[in-house]
Amino acid sequence: MAIENKAPGKDVADDDLVNKFPLVARKYPGHRSRFSVAGVEFGGDLIPVFAGPNMVESRELIVETAKAVKGAGAQFLRGGAFKPLSFPYRSAKYNETREEGISWLQAAKEATGIAIITEVMEERFIPMVAEVADILQIGARNMQNYPFLTACAKTGKPIMLKRHFGASLRDWLGAAEYILVEGNEKLILCERGVVAPHTHRATSRFLLDLQVVPAAQEITHLPVVVDPSHATFWRPWVAPMALASVAAGADGIMIEVHPDPPNAAVDPLQPVDYAEFAGLMDRMDKVAHAVGRRVR
Amino acid sequence: MAIENKAPGKDVADDDLVNKFPLVARKYPGHRSRFSVAGVEFGGDLIPVFAGPNMVESRELIVETAKAVKGAGAQFLRGGAFKPLSFPYRSAKYNETREEGISWLQAAKEATGIAIITEVMEERFIPMVAEVADILQIGARNMQNYPFLTACAKTGKPIMLKRHFGASLRDWLGAAEYILVEGNEKLILCERGVVAPHTHRATSRFLLDLQVVPAAQEITHLPVVVDPSHATFWRPWVAPMALASVAAGADGIMIEVHPDPPNAAVDPLQPVDYAEFAGLMDRMDKVAHAVGRRVR
Amino acid sequence: MAIENKAPGKDVADDDLVNKFPLVARKYPGHRSRFSVAGVEFGGDLIPVFAGPNMVESRELIVETAKAVKGAGAQFLRGGAFKPLSFPYRSAKYNETREEGISWLQAAKEATGIAIITEVMEERFIPMVAEVADILQIGARNMQNYPFLTACAKTGKPIMLKRHFGASLRDWLGAAEYILVEGNEKLILCERGVVAPHTHRATSRFLLDLQVVPAAQEITHLPVVVDPSHATFWRPWVAPMALASVAAGADGIMIEVHPDPPNAAVDPLQPVDYAEFAGLMDRMDKVAHAVGRRVR
Amino acid sequence: MAIENKAPGKDVADDDLVNKFPLVARKYPGHRSRFSVAGVEFGGDLIPVFAGPNMVESRELIVETAKAVKGAGAQFLRGGAFKPLSFPYRSAKYNETREEGISWLQAAKEATGIAIITEVMEERFIPMVAEVADILQIGARNMQNYPFLTACAKTGKPIMLKRHFGASLRDWLGAAEYILVEGNEKLILCERGVVAPHTHRATSRFLLDLQVVPAAQEITHLPVVVDPSHATFWRPWVAPMALASVAAGADGIMIEVHPDPPNAAVDPLQPVDYAEFAGLMDRMDKVAHAVGRRVR
Repeated sequence: MAIENKAPGKDVADDDLVNKFPLVARKYPGHRSRFSVAGVEFGGDLIPVFAGPNMVESRELIVETAKAVKGAGAQFLRGGAFKPLSFPYRSAKYNETREEGISWLQAAKEATGIAIITEVMEERFIPMVAEVADILQIGARNMQNYPFLTACAKTGKPIMLKRHFGASLRDWLGAAEYILVEGNEKLILCERGVVAPHTHRATSRFLLDLQVVPAAQEITHLPVVVDPSHATFWRPWVAPMALASVAAGADGIMIEVHPDPPNAAVDPLQPVDYAEFAGLMDRMDKVAHAVGRRVR
Repeated sequence: MAIENKAPGKDVADDDLVNKFPLVARKYPGHRSRFSVAGVEFGGDLIPVFAGPNMVESRELIVETAKAVKGAGAQFLRGGAFKPLSFPYRSAKYNETREEGISWLQAAKEATGIAIITEVMEERFIPMVAEVADILQIGARNMQNYPFLTACAKTGKPIMLKRHFGASLRDWLGAAEYILVEGNEKLILCERGVVAPHTHRATSRFLLDLQVVPAAQEITHLPVVVDPSHATFWRPWVAPMALASVAAGADGIMIEVHPDPPNAAVDPLQPVDYAEFAGLMDRMDKVAHAVGRRVR
Repeated sequence: MAIENKAPGKDVADDDLVNKFPLVARKYPGHRSRFSVAGVEFGGDLIPVFAGPNMVESRELIVETAKAVKGAGAQFLRGGAFKPLSFPYRSAKYNETREEGISWLQAAKEATGIAIITEVMEERFIPMVAEVADILQIGARNMQNYPFLTACAKTGKPIMLKRHFGASLRDWLGAAEYILVEGNEKLILCERGVVAPHTHRATSRFLLDLQVVPAAQEITHLPVVVDPSHATFWRPWVAPMALASVAAGADGIMIEVHPDPPNAAVDPLQPVDYAEFAGLMDRMDKVAHAVGRRVR
Repeated sequence: MAIENKAPGKDVADDDLVNKFPLVARKYPGHRSRFSVAGVEFGGDLIPVFAGPNMVESRELIVETAKAVKGAGAQFLRGGAFKPLSFPYRSAKYNETREEGISWLQAAKEATGIAIITEVMEERFIPMVAEVADILQIGARNMQNYPFLTACAKTGKPIMLKRHFGASLRDWLGAAEYILVEGNEKLILCERGVVAPHTHRATSRFLLDLQVVPAAQEITHLPVVVDPSHATFWRPWVAPMALASVAAGADGIMIEVHPDPPNAAVDPLQPVDYAEFAGLMDRMDKVAHAVGRRVR
């Protein structure tokens, strides 16, 4: 049967399915992907840290934060320029910064030399984002948007794929396979909390799933990053969960950092400030050394 | 601040947010959207039934099934031509039919006059699908793909928005708002099962959430359809859950029907065959009458 | 090995385990337990209704409610005299009525002839409760308190075993087996909501699991009752979920009824009043007839 | 109103409820219970380790294991003599050791001097178990068996209260309050995994909830122990989750240890053997030092 416009994915013989795939699977005991992004190695002893605000609110905020988190040892600046809310309204109280935000990330990179990870949410913006970002972040809500995964994969840029909060490990690895099958091997997974019956705060919807770290590493060779900020949605729990993530074997940590958390444009309950982040870097590094690794 | 490429959604004054929105919300007690699609009324006494195979496997299969389900009283033929799997492989055992499948749905429509609902999964295929479909189905995995929701909404075609299996009611209604805010008011919600701790079969991952029917209807005026086939993933539970959906106040029912369930190309444990479907239509109609409604 | 004080349960040969057990399982297609309690048949066409307040607050309240629910057609009066809260405090605002409450249930029975179901929570009170109750209710929190299950079973009284809100179907059937293995065959199961990620109200913790009705009936011959009041915790959802339960094949319905819901001593958001209950009985009966059954 | 047989719990004035209770709550920032059991301090820098088999299978096994885990630095020997299964059958393949098992724990204590923690499951066995155990363990299934909690509390023995796998933090703290209100202040909480939609193995039902560690410590002064063995049900995940628990701030760790895991009488997939336990103690101690604590 002839199909004109191919679906995302790959035609394979049934035999190949058995012998060659999935690419996401470990092929031998201890098999781990190792690769470098902007000079930072993933999959080895280093546990890279991604830090920064939820939103790229302004040039000043992002450049200043870049300096602060780099000074504390973070390898990547994180920050979103594309941040649609659950309801489609933008007002004086909340707005995305989009292209401008991406240009401010570029400014932060130029000012400090820090590498950039930021989310891309639409195919038409991939080239613009890919020009500035060292890693393209694919958000939880797009995890099973397969044509989009394919389009991102085809840029050849390193990608971080966040787990959807309702996705099983199998769903997540299947989505990762859509990227790997395009020949893009610089792929990082990121756990950011799942829906669960009890999350312990009325303001929170997610439970950080640290059990998925050894569960994923048992099956896949890909690095597994943990984001405790979005999972816990509560500043006082971020540090204990970040330390726990390092101890559990996470291959990277993403932390939300803002100079003035109570006045963050979005989700003001979850970011840590510069001083708390610097202290947390020291504490994470101690735990990392205790398990034979390091965060800087 | 000037934004060149607008995000999906709408700029509003803070006052408007309080006074006019959300559009998805009931504005007075008993407020229900009522509209017709292909001559079938939604939001009234009728509980329309969408029936057909998971996949549009062949022209013969879909034309024959259209005749069978129409004969039993279904108002809509359902069937997917775009069906990416969780892993990106297509083999002799499983393949999408894509454009061809859409053309076969057109053939079924022409042969029987039945209205069509089918899923669209990529922006570039919207025009092609919209030409044949009476209702564009947006799948669970795309529920929070906002640019895609916006693009579908802009066609002006009636839309059915499936709830993501990890989505809260608020997430779902927020996604619906992305469609309503474009002026597209022929919008239908569809519950298809959620992730939950206990689903009662090793082969199943979802629990049908019937509590969401009154919960949604308490807040929104939109019709709420229930799909027990995908939720239960198990043929013997489809009929009891379909009857329960009707009794719970569902505004439509989607049932997977296949002439030869054990040989269905995908998910062979869940479809009912023609005879079981015809019997189920009779049973659903009896329950519908018991609650002052009807399914045909 | 000699064991002085036997554990709850039964010593069996491995062969017996394969051939005779579990007792809870259906032994042939369509196998259903049928038995009578106080002249009311379970497991047949009738879907008995248990109605009454959460708490037996006073003699007047329970006698009056008994008349009202019996008048509407309910076969059983429900009401708890033992109701410990999640925290161990009793104050002027909330108190159990215990022995007095049980005596008031007896008064309601004498005044109306209605059968009684009430919860027993401690082994030492079993004789006292068993003297008045036609069915001993074992609450969700005691579902896996096996010595207590055994003690209740040994009374020979009919028992209704509520599913714990975190229990799998297997857990629940295993607990039922502890009762059956004592030779007590008048056993009824009751679903009352489970913990799940999304329950749709901030005040509610449970999702009614109707999928468990066909799931349980596929495996066991025991009658399966549904309690939508405790599951939804919200009056407006009780009726739709009660109707759905009947349509799903439930073998009994438990409804919380109070003469003055806003002033109920506990959980005032969930009971229906007398008039709403009478109307609901009519509506349930119509749905029951639509599926070949009846509620009175 | 006179109540003859008091319910578990306490009569209080409404004012007292506001001013004095709950006892489980922190009364000032940094408030933590500190107490000693068998010379081992809880609530301080030390993170005590409870290690041993799921079941006390034989005198030899438990004495030998006591020596092994004490040698590796564990402060407490764990092991269950009362272990009812989900179904009530005991056969040659599986049996509880009950009184004999308790006497073997006593033998292990005498042989090694290690302190003992073991579960008690029925009120009538409390005196027998309390004679040998340094800590009475209350299992998850009894967490809301309030009369039993009260009876255990009244012994004055230290108690460890496991969280039910479906219980919220509030449920758990409320159950703890039933113990504290009896004046028993040597109380330890233990997280052992919760039901959740995705647990990553077909054989496993639970997800370790580490987020509950900071969540509980934010509210209560009681020590919070974590049991990764029961939660993960899978040996390879026990070590990463144990290390994560230490880093997250757990106040104790419970690990299942068996000399010959594949031949354990119950749950053979989860215990570690002696050598793995000794290595894990070293690794936990390193992580503990990294967060300013120690495990021995």
